[in-house]
Amino acid sequence: MGTHSATPPRGFPVSEFEDRTARAQRLMAEARLDALLLTTEPEFRYFSGFLSQFWESPTRPWFLVVPAKGKPVAVVPEIGAAGLRDTWIDELRTWPAPRPADEGISLLVDALKDQTSTHGRIGVPMGAETHLRMPLSDYTRLHDRLPGTHIIDAAPLVRRLRMTKSEREIDKIRHACRVASDAFEALPDRAQTGMSEREICRGLKIDLLERGADTVRYLIAASGPGGYDNIIMGPTDRTLDHGDLLIIDTGATFDGYFCDFDRNFAFGEIDGATLRAYETVYRATEAGLKAARPGATAEAVWRAMWAVLEDGGALGNDVGRSGHGLGMQLTEPPSLMPGDDTVLEAGMVITLEPGMAFAPGKLMVHEENIVIRDGAPELLSRRAPAAIPLIG
Amino acid sequence: MGTHSATPPRGFPVSEFEDRTARAQRLMAEARLDALLLTTEPEFRYFSGFLSQFWESPTRPWFLVVPAKGKPVAVVPEIGAAGLRDTWIDELRTWPAPRPADEGISLLVDALKDQTSTHGRIGVPMGAETHLRMPLSDYTRLHDRLPGTHIIDAAPLVRRLRMTKSEREIDKIRHACRVASDAFEALPDRAQTGMSEREICRGLKIDLLERGADTVRYLIAASGPGGYDNIIMGPTDRTLDHGDLLIIDTGATFDGYFCDFDRNFAFGEIDGATLRAYETVYRATEAGLKAARPGATAEAVWRAMWAVLEDGGALGNDVGRSGHGLGMQLTEPPSLMPGDDTVLEAGMVITLEPGMAFAPGKLMVHEENIVIRDGAPELLSRRAPAAIPLIG
Repeated sequence: MGTHSATPPRGFPVSEFEDRTARAQRLMAEARLDALLLTTEPEFRYFSGFLSQFWESPTRPWFLVVPAKGKPVAVVPEIGAAGLRDTWIDELRTWPAPRPADEGISLLVDALKDQTSTHGRIGVPMGAETHLRMPLSDYTRLHDRLPGTHIIDAAPLVRRLRMTKSEREIDKIRHACRVASDAFEALPDRAQTGMSEREICRGLKIDLLERGADTVRYLIAASGPGGYDNIIMGPTDRTLDHGDLLIIDTGATFDGYFCDFDRNFAFGEIDGATLRAYETVYRATEAGLKAARPGATAEAVWRAMWAVLEDGGALGNDVGRSGHGLGMQLTEPPSLMPGDDTVLEAGMVITLEPGMAFAPGKLMVHEENIVIRDGAPELLSRRAPAAIPLIG
Repeated sequence: MGTHSATPPRGFPVSEFEDRTARAQRLMAEARLDALLLTTEPEFRYFSGFLSQFWESPTRPWFLVVPAKGKPVAVVPEIGAAGLRDTWIDELRTWPAPRPADEGISLLVDALKDQTSTHGRIGVPMGAETHLRMPLSDYTRLHDRLPGTHIIDAAPLVRRLRMTKSEREIDKIRHACRVASDAFEALPDRAQTGMSEREICRGLKIDLLERGADTVRYLIAASGPGGYDNIIMGPTDRTLDHGDLLIIDTGATFDGYFCDFDRNFAFGEIDGATLRAYETVYRATEAGLKAARPGATAEAVWRAMWAVLEDGGALGNDVGRSGHGLGMQLTEPPSLMPGDDTVLEAGMVITLEPGMAFAPGKLMVHEENIVIRDGAPELLSRRAPAAIPLIG
């Protein structure tokens, strides 16, 4: 691949949303669905292009109805009208929110009734890794006001659509990955023993923003003598000392798309068991890179990595999987794990995240971000060094 | 009040969680509830103290069961066990997640069955401003496996508990507010015409982190000649020019607690209508500060502010309210608006956020963060200047 050094353009041309909607409508026709009802930020944004940080406020629900034909219809609080008018969406139905007695439900009932004359079936994502972003009592009310309408789980449909990324989406993820790779590589020059996890992470977060990340929604750290015991907490005020192993994992975004990978750092001397664990997990990633081909299952890629880890003395892995999809969310389907029979296709963006406990209470986890291509995958993160970086 | 200049301690003593749980259990007894089932990050954290950025990944659900007596029980993915062991929670039940076929549901059924022998009633937040953070199909499965158990809306109960903050919680919000106040006051020295909204905001975000914010989960900007048309989008690449009005609104956090307030900036000369709108909204905030007393309703505070705005020529307000609660979330109950009869009590932290359209497509919105005290409220944000800051 080329050097891809320029910042990609923001947003998408209308054709991107037309394609997404047309693909959805083909799957909806197969599933005999009259409409999709979507309530979460990534689902709403995928079909509308509406990118706002306002989802941070839980007060108001936002609804998008994808009909069997034509453009999506947005049923949204008035506060969102100005932003929605800048998207490709034509039809806005707004209410003066907050209005707890009728938080958009009457409008939504009407919008759905307009669509459900053919099959009487609406798709709502309700399966694995989804949730409904509206009060449960309002959902019950909605259901009661659509008698005779069947509500079907649309999680598999939405998952299938979003799992394969367009080149424009990949460009955004690649940019987030490049920014994070640069920042991780610069970290040893800024960090030293005596600093706390929190200080190191604050510096890294600032560096990520200076290099072009829009947000740093996820940046955790864990450390300990020769190993760490988790990969989802911190950073804490723990001070780094000689012999410590530090992991930092970050999900920074560019234009609403995430990178998600980690790096390990050794402070002063590091013991042999930790070095061997690093090498094992590095080799597991290599095995993942060889296995991640179109046609392979998510489980097969897990198996290729796990064989290396097991051979290297893995005691277990409480992460539960060794990689996952990546895009508008920090983690997306599929999961690289036993039982996930998703067949990889060109354009899928995934993490390879082999990890293991190599001693009681000591984990070693690596992570890279890749896009499945015909032939070998393209690395989006710059490959971690084969030998663990040592910080003086 | 004193100067409060030191960084408050992180976390809470165990007594804080004991108090929260005891208060919950008193309300549960009144409502004849055997247990609360909580699924979202703030609800889980409120009773457990578990503060992790890992909620950013939607893959795994997390469950907390608050029983009628005794400590909460956590039913969580194995990946969370290490972090949970550092909280005050004793009883952890874990499963190897992801496991879509049984994503904690069997464990959760057992944990709830252990509690429901008295009333056969479980509380789940399902009213306004809540959502259920688990797949809807899993919730249906859970419901089916608890035949005879009544599930009651616990939103009012949780809302009542969380609305009034402890002094330790207020300390954290005050610190976030102080950091944001300092950063906003320094902004005119860094910004100038010719810079884009995005550049200015990136600098502000970095400044917030350097001054001690842990995260900047919310930082929007809008601008335009003499006014802006929304307060939830951006920042964009729009370049600031003479005559522009810029608003920036930020929700930065310290130890899991938010500030949420905005500031307006004028570039070069600003027209008279905009200056008058600034003064009007400033005076509306003054009226809010006078009205925000224990015993007043949320509606009464809205009314006091709205009278000033209406007198100043307000054309309307599509924000829908003029302030809200604040704490572990960017926005929390109550809402300062018609129909919200919440009675203010000492210890409630709210925003005063009067806003109005003063010309078609032109908004002016101010915001301050306060804590209700016996007598006059305490300002947590440093009061916005009475005259709009001018940037050359």
